[in-house]
Amino acid sequence: MDANANGTGVTATTTNDTTTSDTTNTATPGATGPDKAGAPTTGADDPARPLGWHKGYLEGSRSDLRVPVRRVHLTTGRDVTLYDTSGPYTDPGVETDVRRGLEPLRQRWILERGDTEEYAGREPRPEDDGIRHTSPRGGLRNLDAVFPGRPRRPRRARDGRAVTQLAYARRAEITPEMEFVAIRENVEPEVVREEIAAGRAVLPANVNHPEIEPMIIGKRFLVKVNANIGNSAVTSSIEEEVEKMTRATRWGADTVMDLSTGRNIHTTREWVLRNSPVPIGTVPLYQALEKVDGRAEELSWDVYRDTVIEQAEQGVDYMTVHAGVLLRYVPLTARRKTGIVSRGGSIMAAWCLAHHKESFLYTHFEELCEILRAYDITFSLGDGLRPGSIADANDEAQFAELRTLGELNRIAKSHDVQTMIEGPGHVPMHKIKENIDLQQEICDEAPFYTLGPLTTDIAPAYDHITSGIGAAMIAWWGTAMLCYVTPKEHLGLPNPDDVKTGVITYKIAAHAADLAKGHPGAQEWDDALSDARFEFRWEDQFNLSLDPDTAREYHDETLPAEPAKTAHFCSMCGPKFCSMKISREIGERFGGDGDATPEEIEAGMLEKSREFAESGNRVYLPLAD
Amino acid sequence: MDANANGTGVTATTTNDTTTSDTTNTATPGATGPDKAGAPTTGADDPARPLGWHKGYLEGSRSDLRVPVRRVHLTTGRDVTLYDTSGPYTDPGVETDVRRGLEPLRQRWILERGDTEEYAGREPRPEDDGIRHTSPRGGLRNLDAVFPGRPRRPRRARDGRAVTQLAYARRAEITPEMEFVAIRENVEPEVVREEIAAGRAVLPANVNHPEIEPMIIGKRFLVKVNANIGNSAVTSSIEEEVEKMTRATRWGADTVMDLSTGRNIHTTREWVLRNSPVPIGTVPLYQALEKVDGRAEELSWDVYRDTVIEQAEQGVDYMTVHAGVLLRYVPLTARRKTGIVSRGGSIMAAWCLAHHKESFLYTHFEELCEILRAYDITFSLGDGLRPGSIADANDEAQFAELRTLGELNRIAKSHDVQTMIEGPGHVPMHKIKENIDLQQEICDEAPFYTLGPLTTDIAPAYDHITSGIGAAMIAWWGTAMLCYVTPKEHLGLPNPDDVKTGVITYKIAAHAADLAKGHPGAQEWDDALSDARFEFRWEDQFNLSLDPDTAREYHDETLPAEPAKTAHFCSMCGPKFCSMKISREIGERFGGDGDATPEEIEAGMLEKSREFAESGNRVYLPLAD
Repeated sequence: MDANANGTGVTATTTNDTTTSDTTNTATPGATGPDKAGAPTTGADDPARPLGWHKGYLEGSRSDLRVPVRRVHLTTGRDVTLYDTSGPYTDPGVETDVRRGLEPLRQRWILERGDTEEYAGREPRPEDDGIRHTSPRGGLRNLDAVFPGRPRRPRRARDGRAVTQLAYARRAEITPEMEFVAIRENVEPEVVREEIAAGRAVLPANVNHPEIEPMIIGKRFLVKVNANIGNSAVTSSIEEEVEKMTRATRWGADTVMDLSTGRNIHTTREWVLRNSPVPIGTVPLYQALEKVDGRAEELSWDVYRDTVIEQAEQGVDYMTVHAGVLLRYVPLTARRKTGIVSRGGSIMAAWCLAHHKESFLYTHFEELCEILRAYDITFSLGDGLRPGSIADANDEAQFAELRTLGELNRIAKSHDVQTMIEGPGHVPMHKIKENIDLQQEICDEAPFYTLGPLTTDIAPAYDHITSGIGAAMIAWWGTAMLCYVTPKEHLGLPNPDDVKTGVITYKIAAHAADLAKGHPGAQEWDDALSDARFEFRWEDQFNLSLDPDTAREYHDETLPAEPAKTAHFCSMCGPKFCSMKISREIGERFGGDGDATPEEIEAGMLEKSREFAESGNRVYLPLAD
Repeated sequence: MDANANGTGVTATTTNDTTTSDTTNTATPGATGPDKAGAPTTGADDPARPLGWHKGYLEGSRSDLRVPVRRVHLTTGRDVTLYDTSGPYTDPGVETDVRRGLEPLRQRWILERGDTEEYAGREPRPEDDGIRHTSPRGGLRNLDAVFPGRPRRPRRARDGRAVTQLAYARRAEITPEMEFVAIRENVEPEVVREEIAAGRAVLPANVNHPEIEPMIIGKRFLVKVNANIGNSAVTSSIEEEVEKMTRATRWGADTVMDLSTGRNIHTTREWVLRNSPVPIGTVPLYQALEKVDGRAEELSWDVYRDTVIEQAEQGVDYMTVHAGVLLRYVPLTARRKTGIVSRGGSIMAAWCLAHHKESFLYTHFEELCEILRAYDITFSLGDGLRPGSIADANDEAQFAELRTLGELNRIAKSHDVQTMIEGPGHVPMHKIKENIDLQQEICDEAPFYTLGPLTTDIAPAYDHITSGIGAAMIAWWGTAMLCYVTPKEHLGLPNPDDVKTGVITYKIAAHAADLAKGHPGAQEWDDALSDARFEFRWEDQFNLSLDPDTAREYHDETLPAEPAKTAHFCSMCGPKFCSMKISREIGERFGGDGDATPEEIEAGMLEKSREFAESGNRVYLPLAD
């Protein structure tokens, strides 16, 4: 059987794969080496172990359109083909170097369209990296951190033309990016175009981020997962952020948001963008605030606009904009239990109160649309008034802002700008459906992008779980992308291990939702793993799992011996007799042709009873019922 | 504010508490010492740390009826009162000794009823501990492991009388056990009696297990969590099982199932029972199978009956019985992807096939009811044909067995035996509700007791999460008790850390369901924690959380300094300005009287804008949006 998580029945033979040689990735030693970035099954950390999967590619209509997939080798000789977000780092045939950055896969597609032009671009300034005259420390933390890769001049739309995937889709054009995601999702390119044209899906792809492997966010496609990274004034280095990005994508993150604050924001983002195979999102307001030395009241449209352009030229694919926090909504948070918990929301609330004026993000929204359109940056309209506790869920403040986001969504679309909507937050299970239903209605089915939601407030240190529950449910009901939550939520900055835990928890939620939505082919992944389990193919079970290393490690903790990875002593049954074995025998007896008559079954059971009487098989006891 | 997770607004003043002295538990060094058993906040492992909570008691109508609660001290001077399952081990005023066992709290209540009598009881035999003539190794692994506590002669019903809580409830009697749980759940005793009488709730309490603190399982009460423990031929010792039990209850397990196999089954169970403050469940079939040297076909009603009586006399409170696996259902599993995955189910299927006869558990069911009635053992009717993969969910085999369980439920009730029904297993989200709805209809609303369900098969090593998602949902829809799943599911035997992870994950699922069901007072726990979060009361946040130690540890990883536990540098905001702080100021401005007029709000906002202009507060950036 050849299963495929995203619905394609592709087999290795139908594709031109890269070599399956087990030469380890030749990336320069560093964050992006598979050995350090935690490649699940390249076997890099154990040469003796058989290579669990290799990178394959599905070819499109042109030679430069090759869609990466993960091929899991089964001991049966078959392959299972899975969606892959890990980028070139897991392709032994590709040399990667974090100091050079990834190859610009989309560059030719962008140039061929002929609707963008290079230009001088904005002059970098010290404050871009948080270097302030008021600052006690001058200069970058480490100057050699500046990205050494060949400088590329920025591009933007030529004479005000609309260069967004939405504009192309509306003009009935199927771009290479659309074909790429169509192959990736196993749907017709026309389906992709239709969903984008209708505003029900977005394909975030800044013309200045040609390195990405295109992906799509929409309820008709696989549920996506975003991982937040970002250094802060307190901790972490540029190298660590790049490692977080490569690890997040290796474990399955579909997009990454760089929420860096403090110093080196510009440089950190440059390193992340140039090395990222997935779309990168940011919250420009954070950097803008740094530029005014953290004084909310000193923020202005000019500073914000300058920051958006700075990030647009670097290649940020989508931006969170908290333009729905209106002056008149602020008092609605007055009687809340936890008031305003969104950073962006609280900053804009502070600005509105300080000036007693309407938010400049709202008053300048159309101008902002024109900027985003020139680079094809996707809006992620932020929910600055989302609930920060169970008590505040689905309240007046939250839904008032949502109605404004619906209004802004229409304005953005009128400018051909792709748009998704951000959602909560902290919501008890019985109030989750109301959120997604209302968002879909008010925002014309624009993709919903939710943080969790957390279904209870009582478990700090386990909020990946409190929120994974809500995330699975809201994704089942239509959320297109889930923003992960790590165990450190509410407590501190996630480290690379927290990033892995958050991503895997959210891949579980996303896949559980794909199953519940009946996404074509989603269950084939579960079936492949369950077949392996039923047939005691332990290595196949490990290699098909979301985290093969940990599954293998847990198994070996109880039964270290290699023979334990055969049918002998599994944790469910034992060597000769076991529930699975009985079942298979029953299957062979009655299930062969799938339509045994009552007489055949009766005869078969008599036969079976003789066998058992003679066999005298011993029952070994499993470890769990 | 004095919140209470299970709805009572009790304050410390209304109860007679035990001392709050921080003298550490004087239990003999060993598994049950709080220092080793991981008391969340006794501070035993850090004397410098203020005692986060102390044991309190709510008094009932008689002096020997004292319901334990957990009182979390807040820095505001108030207490939050929470449901507590940790037993006397967390009461510094009580001396515990694992070699002596716990005090028999219920003994007097049982004697007062005068409907039971002591009797000689069954003679212990070598095979009770798995010592077989065929065995290469003779004798116990360690003979001095035999429980040293004073031997107590077993009790049973006098001349066939019904001594079950169901029988009392039907006779309109409110027992001390019922009053105990009524206080614990903050409902009227009559509600408890009604739910038990109607068969919608069970109160598992074997007359030979007087050590337990009574608890109730039913959809009208708090969702309960069971933790499985049990040694095996492969690993673990008696001491480790006792430690798993005390750790599980300390972290919140409401019942514990001892699934021990291999050797020392009888002795391990004795140690667990004598030291357990919660009801203990077992699967007698496992031990019966050991007695026939693991040969399923050699099982017989006599061997099974002998095992049930052996365990009944020891004090097992509820027993899983796979009496619904009928001969004619076995072929229904033939075309399944993973056949029969329940140990009990596969053993009975093997027996049925070997003899080509109907299950002796089914044919002798009424006799079994008479035995359970004599000790007040609760039936947990096992789902031997539950699905073991997403592909097999809600199939003919599963629902055919469920209909038989409905029939057996009525027979058990006709014998005054308390009964709950076990459920799956592996079920995708969209098929979960059908399970609980069908079970409630077919089984006359008898309590549903489900294992997860796991919502996907692809994440071995993370099945506490794949199943926590399904558990929260099915509990919201009416499941009364959740059987936890640990990260080791499908891979190996859980160690004490896995037990903790499983219990905490399931406490999250159970509480999320209590919130969604609108359980009276459930949200007060969340509110108390969110208030502490909003007011930067870090220690209160830690102490109110399900796992204070880990929450504190994660916080300190990023911001180790003690001052960090004040408003300075929290992971959401910062020292002077933060979203929470703005919100509080807005609250004081507009929220004071809760009914500000538009004019007042307008005036207030103008005032506020002046304040901000003057304040020049700096915005510190949080670590997560």
